Amino acid sequence: MTAPEEPRRRTPAEEARTIVEGTNVGTLATLTQAGDPWASLVTYGVLADGAPVLLVSHLAEHGRNLVLDPRASLVAATPARGDDPLDMGRVTLAGRAERRAGGEEQAARAAHIAAVPQAATYVDFSDFSLWVLRVERVRWVGGYGRMGDVEPADYVAAEADPVAAAAPYAVRHLNDDHADALLLMARVLAGHEDATAAACTGADRYGLDLRVDTPGGETPARVGFAERVTVTDGLREATVELARRARSG
Amino acid sequence: MTAPEEPRRRTPAEEARTIVEGTNVGTLATLTQAGDPWASLVTYGVLADGAPVLLVSHLAEHGRNLVLDPRASLVAATPARGDDPLDMGRVTLAGRAERRAGGEEQAARAAHIAAVPQAATYVDFSDFSLWVLRVERVRWVGGYGRMGDVEPADYVAAEADPVAAAAPYAVRHLNDDHADALLLMARVLAGHEDATAAACTGADRYGLDLRVDTPGGETPARVGFAERVTVTDGLREATVELARRARSG
Repeated sequence: MTAPEEPRRRTPAEEARTIVEGTNVGTLATLTQAGDPWASLVTYGVLADGAPVLLVSHLAEHGRNLVLDPRASLVAATPARGDDPLDMGRVTLAGRAERRAGGEEQAARAAHIAAVPQAATYVDFSDFSLWVLRVERVRWVGGYGRMGDVEPADYVAAEADPVAAAAPYAVRHLNDDHADALLLMARVLAGHEDATAAACTGADRYGLDLRVDTPGGETPARVGFAERVTVTDGLREATVELARRARSG
Repeated sequence: MTAPEEPRRRTPAEEARTIVEGTNVGTLATLTQAGDPWASLVTYGVLADGAPVLLVSHLAEHGRNLVLDPRASLVAATPARGDDPLDMGRVTLAGRAERRAGGEEQAARAAHIAAVPQAATYVDFSDFSLWVLRVERVRWVGGYGRMGDVEPADYVAAEADPVAAAAPYAVRHLNDDHADALLLMARVLAGHEDATAAACTGADRYGLDLRVDTPGGETPARVGFAERVTVTDGLREATVELARRARSG
């Protein structure tokens, strides 16, 4: 058997988009009148180009700050997998916030309410305004040793992983009920012919991450799907194809 | 029966301390060399006076920022109870970060590692420094309509609620297994003699929050413990005393 070519992974830009679109709450850094940094919790939606849409009261400190100085930075994060908070995936977006009103308000309004349905009840309050954060810098940290700056143009062009929300369940299900198939994938598709056990540690639109036990010790491995998954419920079909490929060796 | 006096609640300063000490991860706002706000995830511990202790690499953007300008702001938050992110309790602390080295390092180091045990493995790396955020402003938001500025001196003097971590379990347990006792509390201790049902919506060191069904509709109510709870596992005993008091009418 020849060593498999390195299976595809999400790019840093895709990682960043996936984290940003995976939640609707983050922390915004703005500048006070004195130029001090001010951190505050905000909810947000996301435009098609990845720009966050905030709905901010000018009675709130961050609302007053944005009116005085549009520079802002937003952190979005995914929950830690274990009990180590620095294993959390997180993204910092930085740029300038632009107020949306009149004709250009509709897309921003729709994006915010799609992500934060509760906002429908206060979006029309007179003290609230929609702001779009024009992204000029993107910094992604995926956990220990996985990080990088992302070109804003790459962030704009990237797509959030459609299976991100379903992945934790899929990982649990594979480990609970399909250990044999994972072992076969490790042996046949990942090139670890001496594997004695395999567990799934991650799933994304491009494939599965495995932790493989071998006589020489534990090693990470990656198996790639035949095609990238394009629908939110596509992990099962892609994984079944992987298992079939492993069985037919 | 006389109307009960309004039972004690946590002060805003106590709410803030409870949120800050209830987690070990937050988002820090710092200033870049250009004076732009920069938001990034950090872990922290807390000194006895409530000051957060950061352990920051000078290779990280926020580490470089603090060296250039010590002004910083930290948001800590508790998870939302339901699916509404703006129902999250959160606190913004703002002030100046001071580097801790030499003899004054020990308390900061111990506080950080107590909150973030994983930090023991990298606290001595040469690129990491301990920073204490000297708190000059405190802003607390408890959810919809519960918020306020807190005097820094009050924040310093306040104690985190020792039962905060245990409260969600206690609330579930009371609702699952002790609906009769809750109803009796609502009738006898909260003055809703016509109550037909009661659920517990919150528990803290000073008492229980109830949602009471009456012929006139649903109403919130509060019942106070005989004494404030001072130990982490003290909710059960205090609640049993409340139930006993309700039964003896």
